[in-house]
Amino acid sequence: MKNEKAIGIDLGGTNIRGVFVNKEGKIIQQLKYKSRTEKGKEFTIKRIMETVRKLMVQSGNSLEDLKGIGMGAPGPLDIKKGIIHFAPNLPGWKDVPLKRIFEDEFKTKVILENDANAAAWGEKTFGVGKGTKNLVCFTLGTGIGGGIIVDGKIYHGNNFVAAELGHMTVNKNGPCCNCGNYGCLESYSSATGIRNRIKERTRKGIKSDLLSIKDEFSVDSITLKSIFESARMGDKLTESVIEDAITYLGIAVANIANILNPEMIVLVGGITNEGDKLLNPIKKEVLKRTLSSNHQELKIAIGKLGDLAGALGAAALVF
Amino acid sequence: MKNEKAIGIDLGGTNIRGVFVNKEGKIIQQLKYKSRTEKGKEFTIKRIMETVRKLMVQSGNSLEDLKGIGMGAPGPLDIKKGIIHFAPNLPGWKDVPLKRIFEDEFKTKVILENDANAAAWGEKTFGVGKGTKNLVCFTLGTGIGGGIIVDGKIYHGNNFVAAELGHMTVNKNGPCCNCGNYGCLESYSSATGIRNRIKERTRKGIKSDLLSIKDEFSVDSITLKSIFESARMGDKLTESVIEDAITYLGIAVANIANILNPEMIVLVGGITNEGDKLLNPIKKEVLKRTLSSNHQELKIAIGKLGDLAGALGAAALVF
Repeated sequence: MKNEKAIGIDLGGTNIRGVFVNKEGKIIQQLKYKSRTEKGKEFTIKRIMETVRKLMVQSGNSLEDLKGIGMGAPGPLDIKKGIIHFAPNLPGWKDVPLKRIFEDEFKTKVILENDANAAAWGEKTFGVGKGTKNLVCFTLGTGIGGGIIVDGKIYHGNNFVAAELGHMTVNKNGPCCNCGNYGCLESYSSATGIRNRIKERTRKGIKSDLLSIKDEFSVDSITLKSIFESARMGDKLTESVIEDAITYLGIAVANIANILNPEMIVLVGGITNEGDKLLNPIKKEVLKRTLSSNHQELKIAIGKLGDLAGALGAAALVF
Repeated sequence: MKNEKAIGIDLGGTNIRGVFVNKEGKIIQQLKYKSRTEKGKEFTIKRIMETVRKLMVQSGNSLEDLKGIGMGAPGPLDIKKGIIHFAPNLPGWKDVPLKRIFEDEFKTKVILENDANAAAWGEKTFGVGKGTKNLVCFTLGTGIGGGIIVDGKIYHGNNFVAAELGHMTVNKNGPCCNCGNYGCLESYSSATGIRNRIKERTRKGIKSDLLSIKDEFSVDSITLKSIFESARMGDKLTESVIEDAITYLGIAVANIANILNPEMIVLVGGITNEGDKLLNPIKKEVLKRTLSSNHQELKIAIGKLGDLAGALGAAALVF
């Protein structure tokens, strides 16, 4: 059917993910390319254009079939004007009018949205949060971001920077975060936070009973899965780090339940591969740390869309 | 002018405050009575009715001049149906259909709202937040509550219990809160929290250099003003308690700025009498603990309506 399909792009520092979907969120075609941001802004923009074209060709569609292109990108960005102001993971990008560039190229509707908001919107529209009106999503990756859906709409805040959930202070004297503050959730529960804390303990001479870590540099080559697994087995190096990561994430989820009383809190991103082993202790923490009125109807869930939440959410924004 | 005036009632455990206002929030008449909740629910309800009648008579108005009655009350309550389910500060109140009772009595529109939401709405409509669209209000009293305004409307959450700001966990191993959790903001920064911590220190034998506190029971007779003043003078007993109260309040305000990116955060209630001596250290904490995008346009202010924020907000809800 004409105009009933959309392309969603998730632009990350490492990968560009693209989906071609219909209105129901059915994926007709999907692609993944390296962003190769070290090759400069123009190169990456051309890659996204190539992705858009290939998604159409490979699915046997053309521009006429397309209602538009949705793009999720790291912030801070101006959603109204469609400009990426700058992004720590996209070196050299400064005030890039991505919306206009793609409108000019493809003569179609283009929507730019913060990547974590896009992921929240994806889970709300096509994922685990389908049918909810108030939902908060934690994106748990290298860093920690978030998206807040209020009354069926993305809540942007006063200057488009709401839902910085990773920078909630959970311990006033905690580790130093990339943002300069101490004790942000991100410094405990993000992949970077977890690795940094293990490195710090390695520097102090604490050895792992189970993992082969000879110095702090080798921490980067250990998977998160192994780190969680070793912690569960009581490893001296990783156990307390993972315990803190989960406890503070539980506290952050509880705080959101007390502050926003949403229908659902969704967790997406790398560490959610742990499944119930992550979800159950978080639920326990939330039970302890929320008023009964704020947890009795609350659903806490892991997202259903995996790595495609952002791209699918970006596509959903077009409809 | 006919129908252009409203009555606002703030029903508290100690006092009933009533205002008779016009559409611009000009107070035509105001009254304050003791709630005398120990005399039972019927007694207090009659007192509120008496307050409504006196406000009309003393201002030379009648029911025809009235657009309606707004009431702020402690929760949890059902805002749609206008029922107070129960309230720790109103003993014996269980599933009281306050809206219907007052509609039947006065044959006018009646709106029931959570008291902290009413205070937020008051500051947004007639107070320091006039003209803002996204505002968060902390009500700092015996306990700590809050109200969230999103896009010019009170945000209620999924089951009307959003903005429980006092139960944000700010220190996972902090003091036990009334709610059963440990380290809630309320356990550090509410009047009760501050007094409890001073009592605990008194029990441990820590003496005040400045205040006449002979045992923990005498803590209740010292004013908050004296407690803050002694802390500023370096009193051994109160200094660290007040330092914590302010720091954790600053952290909670910073968290709200990162999570909700509002235009303005308003503080109302007892301890805001400290003025800039409270506001300046809070602003300093927020500067340290928020992303620059989340604090550069943020206004943090003390409310302008004082004790009448709740009653004025309740009245404003009628219009």
